[in-house]
Amino acid sequence: MLVIIGYFSGHPYFFNQLFGGLDKLALSGAILTEALNTSAYTYEVSPVFSLMERQIIQKIITETIGWPQGDGVFCPGGSAANMYGVSLARHSKFPESKVKGMRGMPLVHLYTSRLSHYSLKKAAFFMGFGIDSIVTVGTDRFGRMIPAALEKAIEHSLANGIVPLMVNATSGTTVFGAYDPLDEIADICKKYGGVWLHVDGAWGGAVLLSKKLRNKMKGIDRADSLTWDPHKMAGSILQCALVVTKHATLLKEAHSAKARYLFQQDKIYDVTYDSGDKSVQCGRKIDAFKLWVQWKAYGNVGMAQRVESCFETALHLRDRCRTTPGFRLLVEDPECTNVCFWYIPPSLREQTEDEDWWTKVSRVAPAIKAKMQTTGAMLIGYQPQEEFVNFWRMVVASPENTIQDMDHIIDTIIEFGEKL
Amino acid sequence: MLVIIGYFSGHPYFFNQLFGGLDKLALSGAILTEALNTSAYTYEVSPVFSLMERQIIQKIITETIGWPQGDGVFCPGGSAANMYGVSLARHSKFPESKVKGMRGMPLVHLYTSRLSHYSLKKAAFFMGFGIDSIVTVGTDRFGRMIPAALEKAIEHSLANGIVPLMVNATSGTTVFGAYDPLDEIADICKKYGGVWLHVDGAWGGAVLLSKKLRNKMKGIDRADSLTWDPHKMAGSILQCALVVTKHATLLKEAHSAKARYLFQQDKIYDVTYDSGDKSVQCGRKIDAFKLWVQWKAYGNVGMAQRVESCFETALHLRDRCRTTPGFRLLVEDPECTNVCFWYIPPSLREQTEDEDWWTKVSRVAPAIKAKMQTTGAMLIGYQPQEEFVNFWRMVVASPENTIQDMDHIIDTIIEFGEKL
Repeated sequence: MLVIIGYFSGHPYFFNQLFGGLDKLALSGAILTEALNTSAYTYEVSPVFSLMERQIIQKIITETIGWPQGDGVFCPGGSAANMYGVSLARHSKFPESKVKGMRGMPLVHLYTSRLSHYSLKKAAFFMGFGIDSIVTVGTDRFGRMIPAALEKAIEHSLANGIVPLMVNATSGTTVFGAYDPLDEIADICKKYGGVWLHVDGAWGGAVLLSKKLRNKMKGIDRADSLTWDPHKMAGSILQCALVVTKHATLLKEAHSAKARYLFQQDKIYDVTYDSGDKSVQCGRKIDAFKLWVQWKAYGNVGMAQRVESCFETALHLRDRCRTTPGFRLLVEDPECTNVCFWYIPPSLREQTEDEDWWTKVSRVAPAIKAKMQTTGAMLIGYQPQEEFVNFWRMVVASPENTIQDMDHIIDTIIEFGEKL
Repeated sequence: MLVIIGYFSGHPYFFNQLFGGLDKLALSGAILTEALNTSAYTYEVSPVFSLMERQIIQKIITETIGWPQGDGVFCPGGSAANMYGVSLARHSKFPESKVKGMRGMPLVHLYTSRLSHYSLKKAAFFMGFGIDSIVTVGTDRFGRMIPAALEKAIEHSLANGIVPLMVNATSGTTVFGAYDPLDEIADICKKYGGVWLHVDGAWGGAVLLSKKLRNKMKGIDRADSLTWDPHKMAGSILQCALVVTKHATLLKEAHSAKARYLFQQDKIYDVTYDSGDKSVQCGRKIDAFKLWVQWKAYGNVGMAQRVESCFETALHLRDRCRTTPGFRLLVEDPECTNVCFWYIPPSLREQTEDEDWWTKVSRVAPAIKAKMQTTGAMLIGYQPQEEFVNFWRMVVASPENTIQDMDHIIDTIIEFGEKL
């Protein structure tokens, strides 16, 4: 059966993914770049856009993150940005692999929490490491990587003669929104001889925009590279993502191929403005401009407020889940704007919570979501995760969302679910 | 010195890259997808777009190419599409590498012509093969791969115990626009036990739209995978690119990670409509819709005419280069819409063409281009290539370009260059 339903993220109750809403400034930037139809690779074909991209990357590095220097590249999504993180880690330790490939490299391990995004797995097989090179590290009740478990995993690798290449710490996990403890992880990376610390902040990295919230990523100054998707909580419209690294020359060293037909050295301008050879793409969409327009218009304060608004709205939903009968939070104190919960309909309340009961609970979210979809009321994601059966993951990704919207979600779930 | 010049591909004399012009239908599609701001990964968040993408991929596979079946995925550019080609080749022969990585694989070689696009080199190091795994094959006077040289290269690999994994044949090389002889290459791939044949048709693949021109890619039915960038000669606005393969299940087998939070199996619709797990991206921009709009509006005939128009316009420029004093073609009969030539100013004509003379010729194009840039007259690319010093590469990438435009180019080059 194919059900045709017209859901797009502009729907006021679209909460299905880690993006949503429609920022008009970002849209104006997007329309302009579509109409000008050019590529980011060389200054000569995207002069002003090249300058804007360079400026915004440097602003993110020196102001938003606070590294003394660095380099970065916009790329088509957080998965691609995480691949760059892996590539930088590899090139940093084994630069000869660029020419000789991975056959000559020793076995290496990439560490990531069991709740991190699946893109690291895709990076591992696409880039020649293989899924076996990934070591998943346990998490605490908030969903954060346990540093002691990471250290044990690294010790285990070393005991088996395997090189610990990179830790992928997550700032804002996909489902729970957990922030791995960067400072403690950085200590471990340092202790074991400088393991590359990549931070996947695709979702939660937006807290760096806010003085109030940035403490969640304490230790980011010690990371080697960072993924951030402004198209998520900053509302910069898909696609707007980048990877940055504090190692100023490494992106180019790792990825340049010096194509002479594109990156001629006898141009009439300073060819360091041609950013394309840092990238593994050739033609590359202008993704930075949308964010540039937003940031210029909202200012640092406005950008921070947008993110803070998402957090405040999510807290209201958390509180409603705490106090409304039938709602049960998976993480009592969510760290990001992800609010994960089960809705237990009256027919299943106050019963023995055995396997059979959980099986029944697992059918609740799909049944309610089917009603949401067929009525066009709203769209919210649910999923199972590890030992937990199907639960709702509500995310607030746009400052357009209000506490009234959160109340409406609670009401709708009750309306569609109370008879189940 | 930083020269700020506002060139974008919408300029009527923008000929610097393998794209240009602005198709209004593609733009209308682009604006709609920006405003709807959704992702291509699941049917539930891009219902109609998912159907359109699926339909257009199947149309390309069964009608445009003519394979009995297959699968494909839109991706952010031809470089990414070529990476998928390499990934498919690897997974086809060494599926265990997905889990175990490349350390356990034998040494492999990837063959490509010396004039092919640099993205294969980037794929080789990014994906763990290393640049050493690339074997460059010689070309004829049109810039086409020489089949006998390919065969010799494969024999050489085999004699050294190296597995011939993939041939990357190019349909429309970046600079000369040459079409490698697919049928003869396919014979060789077959002869040596089924070497994967990937065709990089990022630029020249558009000829498949035309009954008159498609013979340039005779043998495409025998290829295993194909890259095509509709954002180039089809004018679908950057980014619009895809990879297709005739092996219907392989994209998924090679790239799936079965993320449970995104690709739930208990949805209310047929989950084979969720295309995201074939991709190594997670969030993925809607790139297919622009092409869908164009194709629906222009029809098969209109799409063919657009491409044929580019070829006709380019032929006029070729003829002008043949007959205008001072112009000298590098390839007498260009196979695509690339017209490559030197302009020899009067002061350098009828002289001994020694090394010193060629050094002087190498300075002509940069000097003329500087005038083009500082006056805002036009933008055309030049580059050195192999044994040839700086020469012009004029490309016709848009049906908006006319033979009058070509005459204007000749006139402008003379105007800016005759006193050099």
